[in-house]
This record gives sequence, C-alpha cells and structure tokens, in this order.
Amino acid sequence: MKSLKKTSVAVLGATGTVGQRFLTLLSDHPWFEVTALTASERSAGQRYQDAVRWVQSTPLPERFATMEILPTAPPLDCPLVFSALDASVAGDVETAFARAGHFVVSNAKSHRLDPDVPLIVPEVNAGALELARRSPHAPGAIVTNPNCSTIGLVLALKPLADEFGIKKISVVTMQAISGAGLPGVASYEIADNVIPFIPGEEDKMQAETRKILEDDDLLLSAQCNRVPVLDGHLQCVSIELDRKGDAAALRDAWARFEGEPQRLDLPTAPKRPVHYLEGDAVPQPRLHRDLDKGMAATVGRLRPCPLFDYKFVTLSHNTLRGAAGGALLLAELAVAKRLIETASS
Amino acid sequence: MKSLKKTSVAVLGATGTVGQRFLTLLSDHPWFEVTALTASERSAGQRYQDAVRWVQSTPLPERFATMEILPTAPPLDCPLVFSALDASVAGDVETAFARAGHFVVSNAKSHRLDPDVPLIVPEVNAGALELARRSPHAPGAIVTNPNCSTIGLVLALKPLADEFGIKKISVVTMQAISGAGLPGVASYEIADNVIPFIPGEEDKMQAETRKILEDDDLLLSAQCNRVPVLDGHLQCVSIELDRKGDAAALRDAWARFEGEPQRLDLPTAPKRPVHYLEGDAVPQPRLHRDLDKGMAATVGRLRPCPLFDYKFVTLSHNTLRGAAGGALLLAELAVAKRLIETASS
Amino acid sequence: MKSLKKTSVAVLGATGTVGQRFLTLLSDHPWFEVTALTASERSAGQRYQDAVRWVQSTPLPERFATMEILPTAPPLDCPLVFSALDASVAGDVETAFARAGHFVVSNAKSHRLDPDVPLIVPEVNAGALELARRSPHAPGAIVTNPNCSTIGLVLALKPLADEFGIKKISVVTMQAISGAGLPGVASYEIADNVIPFIPGEEDKMQAETRKILEDDDLLLSAQCNRVPVLDGHLQCVSIELDRKGDAAALRDAWARFEGEPQRLDLPTAPKRPVHYLEGDAVPQPRLHRDLDKGMAATVGRLRPCPLFDYKFVTLSHNTLRGAAGGALLLAELAVAKRLIETASS
Amino acid sequence: MKSLKKTSVAVLGATGTVGQRFLTLLSDHPWFEVTALTASERSAGQRYQDAVRWVQSTPLPERFATMEILPTAPPLDCPLVFSALDASVAGDVETAFARAGHFVVSNAKSHRLDPDVPLIVPEVNAGALELARRSPHAPGAIVTNPNCSTIGLVLALKPLADEFGIKKISVVTMQAISGAGLPGVASYEIADNVIPFIPGEEDKMQAETRKILEDDDLLLSAQCNRVPVLDGHLQCVSIELDRKGDAAALRDAWARFEGEPQRLDLPTAPKRPVHYLEGDAVPQPRLHRDLDKGMAATVGRLRPCPLFDYKFVTLSHNTLRGAAGGALLLAELAVAKRLIETASS
Repeated sequence: MKSLKKTSVAVLGATGTVGQRFLTLLSDHPWFEVTALTASERSAGQRYQDAVRWVQSTPLPERFATMEILPTAPPLDCPLVFSALDASVAGDVETAFARAGHFVVSNAKSHRLDPDVPLIVPEVNAGALELARRSPHAPGAIVTNPNCSTIGLVLALKPLADEFGIKKISVVTMQAISGAGLPGVASYEIADNVIPFIPGEEDKMQAETRKILEDDDLLLSAQCNRVPVLDGHLQCVSIELDRKGDAAALRDAWARFEGEPQRLDLPTAPKRPVHYLEGDAVPQPRLHRDLDKGMAATVGRLRPCPLFDYKFVTLSHNTLRGAAGGALLLAELAVAKRLIETASS
Repeated sequence: MKSLKKTSVAVLGATGTVGQRFLTLLSDHPWFEVTALTASERSAGQRYQDAVRWVQSTPLPERFATMEILPTAPPLDCPLVFSALDASVAGDVETAFARAGHFVVSNAKSHRLDPDVPLIVPEVNAGALELARRSPHAPGAIVTNPNCSTIGLVLALKPLADEFGIKKISVVTMQAISGAGLPGVASYEIADNVIPFIPGEEDKMQAETRKILEDDDLLLSAQCNRVPVLDGHLQCVSIELDRKGDAAALRDAWARFEGEPQRLDLPTAPKRPVHYLEGDAVPQPRLHRDLDKGMAATVGRLRPCPLFDYKFVTLSHNTLRGAAGGALLLAELAVAKRLIETASS
Repeated sequence: MKSLKKTSVAVLGATGTVGQRFLTLLSDHPWFEVTALTASERSAGQRYQDAVRWVQSTPLPERFATMEILPTAPPLDCPLVFSALDASVAGDVETAFARAGHFVVSNAKSHRLDPDVPLIVPEVNAGALELARRSPHAPGAIVTNPNCSTIGLVLALKPLADEFGIKKISVVTMQAISGAGLPGVASYEIADNVIPFIPGEEDKMQAETRKILEDDDLLLSAQCNRVPVLDGHLQCVSIELDRKGDAAALRDAWARFEGEPQRLDLPTAPKRPVHYLEGDAVPQPRLHRDLDKGMAATVGRLRPCPLFDYKFVTLSHNTLRGAAGGALLLAELAVAKRLIETASS
Repeated sequence: MKSLKKTSVAVLGATGTVGQRFLTLLSDHPWFEVTALTASERSAGQRYQDAVRWVQSTPLPERFATMEILPTAPPLDCPLVFSALDASVAGDVETAFARAGHFVVSNAKSHRLDPDVPLIVPEVNAGALELARRSPHAPGAIVTNPNCSTIGLVLALKPLADEFGIKKISVVTMQAISGAGLPGVASYEIADNVIPFIPGEEDKMQAETRKILEDDDLLLSAQCNRVPVLDGHLQCVSIELDRKGDAAALRDAWARFEGEPQRLDLPTAPKRPVHYLEGDAVPQPRLHRDLDKGMAATVGRLRPCPLFDYKFVTLSHNTLRGAAGGALLLAELAVAKRLIETASS
C-alpha cells in the first residue's frame, strides 16, 4: 500500500482550527505531503505563519510556517484536497474543485446529505464510499466527513446496531468550544456558563446518523449544549434495542468491534474504534479525549435505563476524530480503495 | 403574618457553602434572626470569621463575623433550626434536634425518603407539610428540602403534571460545582472537563421526584454531570404527557403557575415560580441563575421531541432555590401554616 | 442637586459590553434618563433587544428592549452623551458630537491624552474637569474616563501620593476578559491560559497615570496580562515613596481617603473610594469586584518590598468602576459642577 | 553511560499529582525502573490503581496499575528514591531514607535550604551536586529540586547572570493549579478568579534563587498568584544588570545557553534549556508549556523597563520541569556523575 513517493495534498481553509489540526496531522504523514495551503482572499499571498492565529499546543510545523497561502480556487497541483472550509462557502467551492478533477474530502456540512455524495465514518460504512466512483462531480468527487458530534455517536452505536439493532436513541451532548472554530464562542459568553443551543446541530445529528447507519426509520432525539471545555464532545445516550442483550454482551460488542481502517491498518486508524472504560466517572474530556491518538470513541457508565434499555456516556475528540483526523482516515481509506490516483499508482 | 419580634433560628453546619448561603439570606430577614451557628467540633469555640472559608461574592455579614461557633448538639435556644449538615452526620443529629423540640428544616438527604417526613417544594406540594403535625420525632419535627437538581425539575414539571399529566421523563443534568460544597470538586479535576457522574444523584432525582409529585408510577431516567460552572444547574428534559397539548398551552401553564408561597406572599418567594424565556439559547447558568432572587426555575427551548412529546431546557440556582433559599421558603411556609411556634404566636 | 425632571442622555455604542453596563446603571438613575441608543449602521433601525447580544447577569431592562437603535451621528435630542464607542471610530465621532453642542463623557482612549481634554477620576483629579469650560470642541465638550486598569491603580495610589509622594511604580496586571469587549477574546484562546500581552495597554497605563496624578516625572513600569476571569482587574504593585511611612500610616491614608464624589454624595459614588481588606489572600476578583457597588478599589497584602518600599495588591471592577460606572460618576460630577445644562438648571 | 540493566527506583508519595507525573516519566525510562511505590498508611497495601485519583491526560501505565503500594519507610530494595512527599512529612522521612543508604532526590522544600544539602537545577549549578559526596546523612544522601516557580526563573536568569551580572529582580508569578497538588485548590475558589497569595511561595523564591545562583546579595522581590490554569507557571520579570547589554545580546545569551544535561545528553534533558519566542503575546501556558518535552523555560517579550534595565515574560511547566521532570533530570545527572551506585556500576 505505502507509496515510495508521497501524494500531494492541499488543505483548503488552512488557518482555522480544523485547518490547523490537519497540518499537525499531515506534518509527518507517511502517504501524504502538503503542497498547497489556501485561505480567504484576505490571507492569500501571506506566509502561513503571518496569517494564522495558531492555537495548537504543539508548535506550528516549520515546513508550513513560510508556505505562501494561495487563494481557495481550483485547480491546484495535487490530486487530493482536504476541505476545512466554513459551510458558508464550502458548497460551491468544493463542487468547483471536484469538477476540476480533485478528490475532495470535506469536513463541511454542505454536501453531506446530498444523496449521491458519500457521508462516511470509515469503521461504520466504508462500503458507501463506492458511491464516489459514480460521482456527480466528475471527473473529481466529493466525499464527506460527518459533524463532529455525529462521528462519536455512530462509532459507539454501530457495534450495537449490528448486534442488537437500534430502534430509538435519545442523546444530550456537551460539546467543546473548539467545535465552533475561531474566533468561535466569545470567552465572555461561555466562561462560567453552558449555552444550551448550537445552531443546526440537533438536526445534523439526526439526519446524518440515519444516513450513516442506513436506517431511515431510526428515531433519534438530540439536545446539544456548548460547555467550557477546550476539546472533546461528551454525550449522554439512551437507547432502545431491537433484540435484548445483557450489559456484558454490549460491552463485548464494543470490544470486538473493528472496521476497514483496522483491517487495512491505515496510518491514522485507532487500534480500536471504541474503548469501553471501567469505572464510575468515565470517560472525561480532559482525561480521555487523546486516547488512541484522539481517534477512538470512549464509552463508559453502561447501565439500564428506566425508559429505554440502556444508557451510557460516550466521548470523542471533536477536532481529531470529529474533524481533521476523521477526514484524514477517510482519505486513507479512499487511497486504499484506489479511489484516488496516488503518486505510486 | 409578620411578627414584631423575630423568631430565633440556628444554622447547623454554618461554615459550608450552603451554610454560607443561609447566612447571606438570613442577614436581613424580616421574620427570622440567627442566634446560633454550629459547625464541627474542630471549629466550635472559634469566631465564625476565623473558622469559615467565605466564598460568597457578597461580604460576610458583620453580625455573624464574630459570633462564636457552637457544637452541633441540641438543645439550642431557638424553635427553628436550619440544617446545612453533610449527609454523613445529618441523620442522627437532626433526629436529636427534633426530639429535643426543635423544628428542623433540613437540606440533607438523610430523612428525605422517610415515609413520615415531609419532602417539600412549597409551590408544588405544600399540602404534604401537614404530615409534620404527626411527627415521628415529637415534640419537634423534621421537614426536608429536596436535592438541588430535583427542585428545579419539579418546579418545571408541576404545571405540566397538573394540566396534562406526565408519564415519562428523561433528564440529563449539567450541574454546577457549588453543588459539591467545599472543598468539593478539586479544581484540577474539573477545569477544562466534565465529570459524567455525581454519586447518588441519579437515584435521588428519581426517587424524590416521585415522592414530591406523588406519583409512584412516574417513569424517570436521570443522567447527572458536573460541569465547570460556579452556580446553576441546567437540565435537558424530554417528557411524555398523558393528555396532549400544544406548545402554547404548555407555555401558558408555566406562565399561570403559582403556589402557596405566592398566594401567601412569603418573604423569600419568587414572584413567579417558573419563567419561560423566549429565544434560541436560553436559559444559561451565568445569565439567568439569579433571576427573581435566584428562587425561580427558568425554562426555555420548548420544542417537539421525536421520541416523547416535548423537550425543553430548565435552569435553577442550586444553592439558592436548590438549597438554602428553598429551605428558607419552606420554613416560611411552616410559619405561615403555624407549624412553628414563633416569637409572636 | 437632584432635579425633579431628569436629564436626557444618549449612549453611543450601546450594544457592546460597556454599553450594556451603561444601560444597567442608567435603568433606574435618579438624575438621568436614556432617550437615545446608538450603534453601528448595521444595527441602526433595529430594536435594541434584536441587535444586542446581552451578556449581563441581570436581565435587559424592559424600557430599553424595544427602543429603536439610532445611527451614531449628531445631533441627538439630549445635552449629555455617553460614549462606549470602540476607539477605532470614537475620535472623530466624539468630536462631531461635541461640536454639535453635546457634553460627551467618553470611555474611549481617543482623546484621553489631548492636552486640552480632561482625563478624570473624580476622586483623584476633579479639579482638572474645569478644563472643560475652555473646550476646544465648543459649544460642546469632551471629557474622558481613563483606561480600565489605570482607574484602579490611581485610586489606590492617590492617597499615598498625597501623603507620602510616589517616585516609582512597578505594576503587573491580571485583567479580566470583559475588558476586551465583545466578541473580544476567543474562548479557545484564553481557556486554561494566560495571554501576557494586551495591545497598547502598558503605554496607556503609563501615560494616563502621569496625566491624572499630574506628575510627568513619575516612573512607572506596567506589564499587562489577560487572565480567564470574567470581571475585575487585579494588579500587583510595588512602590517607592518620597517620604517614608510605616504600613499603618499607609493603611490609614487609604482609610481616610475621600474625594469630591463622596463630599457631594453623588448617586454613583462608592461610600469609600478605597477599601483595605485584612487577610492573607485578598482581594480576589470574584469575591470583591462588586464591593461598594463595584465602584471602589480594594487593596490588600500591604508588605515591605525588598526592592522598593512597599508592595500590595489592588482590584477594581473593570466595566463598572473601570468603564461605565466611572464615566457615569464623571457625568454626575460634571452636573454637580454645573458643566452640563441639565433639565432643571 | 547507559546500563544494560536498569537501576531500581522508588517513588515516595506516588499518588499525588507530582507522583503521577513521576510515573508517566518513568514508565519507559532508559536507565531507571520503578520497583516500589509508596503512599500514606491509608493507601498502603492497596493496588496503585485503587488508591490513586489519576488525573493525567495520558492513561495510567499498566505496569504500575496493579503494583502494591508500600508504606513510606526505609529500607526499600533500590539505591535511588524519588520523593514526591508533602513537605509536612518529607523532612524526617527523607532523612531516614538517606541514613538507610538511599540516594534521595527530593521535590519537597524541607531540606532545600540546609547548607549541606545540594539544591540543584542541573543546567544552572551542576557543580553544587558535589556537595552530596560529603553528605551529612551518610551512607545515603539527599539532593533537592527547587520550588516549581524558582526553577523556571533561574533557568531564564542564569544566562544573563553569567554574561551581564544581575543586581535586582522583580517578579510577579501567575501559577497553575497543579502546583497545589490534589485536592489542592477547590474549584469553587479559583473558577472565575485569581488568588493573590500562595503560602510561603514568595519567601521560597527569594531564598532558593539566591542559593542556586550563589549570590547572597541578590535583591529579589516576588509576588505570587494562583490563576485558573491547569499547568504552567508564567512569570513577569524585571531585571537590573551589572553590565549593560542590548536586547540582541540578551537574546543571544539565552540562545547559546546550555548546561551539563545538554553536554552529557541526559535522557530527560531538553534540547535547549531556554527558548526565546518571537512575537507579541508569547509565551502562553496552554500553547508553550509542553515545548521541548515540558523541560525548557520559554521566554518572550524582552523589552526595556522604565525602572530597571529589561522586562520579559517566562514560562515553565510546573509539574514537569518544575517538579517530577526536574527531579528526574537531577537524578540522571547524579548517575552521570557517579554519585549513585547503579545497576551497571
């Protein structure tokens, strides 16, 4: 699988928080080499280090610091393009890049629910990626990564859906501020506070979960909250199953779960997609968001629910697994499936 | 109702966060005058200002600063006793005070579920206070204030229960750190974090809500989380009703709701027990916890629920309405109902 | 002094954090009545409640909620104008308002260092307000309120300057996020963090302190930091005096200190401009910022300094005393000095 | 240098925050192998994972999870002992361990100022470690690591002291909550707050800095504050030099600085002890505390000071460089200097 020569990639919208995460993940990637960074017109022409407000706790990789920022317009000299664009512009721009021949892996919501665009969590519905071979945006294609909350939820749900079937899901999220990007939430608004609303988020979770789990009848109710946490979305989940199982069987389903990324040993794949943690008060965002490279969902507190069958808590890193890392894993899957023309193919 | 001469009261466990809140509320109370402060053996004999780690944002009232702390043992020279004791000691101590003739208004969980001890939210089940006339701890009595999360929930639920009937409740809480007292949650554990567990809290909410709403068949599932917020418990609630009503009817039920404290114009009563707030992102702990003296529940975001009938968000101040303020209102109700022998009676 | 008929006032830039504080302070003011609110072109024509992102912990006063926002341009039908404008626009706009005949009390930095514009802390240099009678912007005038950090510092310094003389000041500030306005500091940048830089702040503190204390030779070094605190600027100060005094004499100077606002009993004046707090670990922003209506400087930890004479800690509320409250007190002083043509004059 | 067989070490007080950091650093150390963990009597006999409240964001290393906790008493079967004990007990216990033949590397304050006990920052005063050869606690020895604030300060000062001489230092610290250990600072006390006092800290910084820089005449004034930051102590420093130098010369001194750990290539040594960061608003705790394995001091904002010669900001990780990492580096230095009898010696 691994090519001797790396595949060139671009990051669109490279100065935002998700763009920054892409760069930290791509700075030493075995398959991909970043050859273009784009941002808004205002930043184009500047050196990356002058245009970005770097907020990662690891230093800005030197190789990117002095790269000149390009305007966000096709074509670029690379087959693969990661889009960390804001949804307000992503729709048309991504289409243009695809029509110009690029394979676009998008983190924006714009095309997620398009019926002919794959919406993929690689461990959950890798098969749906085949849809990209019949791209409506030929000669290129757009494939999408779900919302940061949806990803963690479907990772936790998939093993149960496969084994027991899921009828109903009630979920309340407590989402980190990095999910809102930069500048995102004003500090004066979230300090000593919870904001019980995230625009569009509840609808996104409901629709995206149905598409990824390929179950249009799934009943899901989401309530989304912003909490003063830097990274890591925590979710309190209650579920009703089709077929009953005891708690040990559920934990076992999570433990045994693996997907294409694990079978293909993709570079960014977590060792295990789901980690069940024993203990009363786990998972916790600060303690567990970085587990398994920040690419796994952690689950804890499985217990019976007086209203449904079970309730539990799940956590995933919203800008790693939930955004840049998830998109990168999706690109790796696409390369492995030979959907992208790579340097060595 | 108002007596010329104030009734003497004691605060048991006066140095904790709830004890401190009692003192801020009692420093200028029209009916009650604090004549005794008690704390643990370690603090007894000290001046209050030397024993307390005062963490309120209003100054320690001068009248209490130099009062000598007494041991927490009956009898004290006052008919009414507020217990802000830790549950680890409250049970026996409160019984001893009642048997010594005191009317004990307790904020501890120890006696809440005793069948012959009233568990009261004055706007919700004032009638149950009559049970105190047949106290098992004669010549005194113990009456109890619910858990800080339960209070906010039942205030929001009661108008709906009366008008539509409630069958099922799913609630996820985001609870403030003051609910854990002092020292409570270590700063290193909660900063940049959420702790998805509060010992005993979920069971308390389930059992206490059934007792207060006098409905043993009520199905309730609670998931409780600690969030980095100073004061104010926020709850995401979904409910299934017995009889359907449109959203306007629910909002109207909240708006019209009042209870004995409002009818009796008790000093600590909020003008309205429930405030429904219009807007997308309300209520929020920092912005709304102090509304109506911190004694009301605020509600927002009423909307249909795909799983039940409706979902909404509710907030209440956990150490005011949820602890000291709620207990004080309960004592006022008891005085108004002539359950306590007051200075002027 | 008090007029039967209130004086009409406008608030320029009413939707920002300082503008919001002005409204909470003016909602029930004995002398002033808000008759006009202005904001940027984008907001003009909207109702105030629709244009503002209200972040105060007290509700938006109803009287302002439905007022229509006006463009920020003179003339307005009121003699007195409070400017909460951003410095990027305040300079010219304030000049225009003054030339149109308004008495402008400004919280912006634009005119503070103009030699013919008064820069006033009412307890410190009330006399300098007389300069407004020879306004270069006649027929109106501009008077200015210092930077939010300067105000707290000079309040603490003035009693010592009067009694002992001050030669050198070394100050390190820890400033609240509300000082940066809205949206101000991004939550992702300040959570779990300190930002050791506030643009222009150190120069402002140095220049403004010299102007207010009327001492061009004063040596002052300021280092300014942003900390994750909602409100209240804390400062660690070391000073070298001209004439030696023991610690008791310094504390006594603070205790005895009063200024024109106290002598004139102005409505917004604190009872005492400086409160010295006994104890090891005081003042603290959350506990003491609201002391004396948030209009006093609190001081603590006076002790010898190995390098200078003394060191101490001081705190003041940056959007009350340090902005809206300070400007309001200044306007009250101007009314009392008959610099503003009031309704009853 | 590296031994084929690792040297056995014990961690005393292994359940606290510093103890936990020791374990994360020692879990894969090339020279040392942890063979004993001790804690208080209460925890002795339990498995480590049952006794510890693990608060690190990396998982508890499995090799330690099931180790049985021993009482904190000599002898243990290892030549080297790391003491993460609380100062309230460290003094006598460390002496007992040394007298029993152990080489004790202590993070506690108890013996730091003993004239015959080395107080070492390996890059700064490695030579003073020779004192351990004439240990007053023979056959073993005690060597000490400074206070977490002192370490960062002296790392930043040493290159300037060597090159220019230092006469006066004024420093104001903003210290992270992890410095107070567990439970440490209550969340309700530090949220939305700064506490302008840390017991004993100012005196420690003054005395320890003089001992490490071997300059009894050094004038130093420290003011210490606790801020709501998880890790990383930030310090605002002003200095007066003996010999003048321009800013470039100071930056150059920092850039060229290296010490014994770098020359000996010790496993825990940072590549460079001091990193000067260009930019307006750096260093920042969250962004830079982990630079160079959390073992370097970062410096920024060098600029002239109106009172002294220069002012600047410095940051260091208080539980890595400032505690466990610093102590580990000191042990490595002692091994390299053949002060500890190692497995391969």
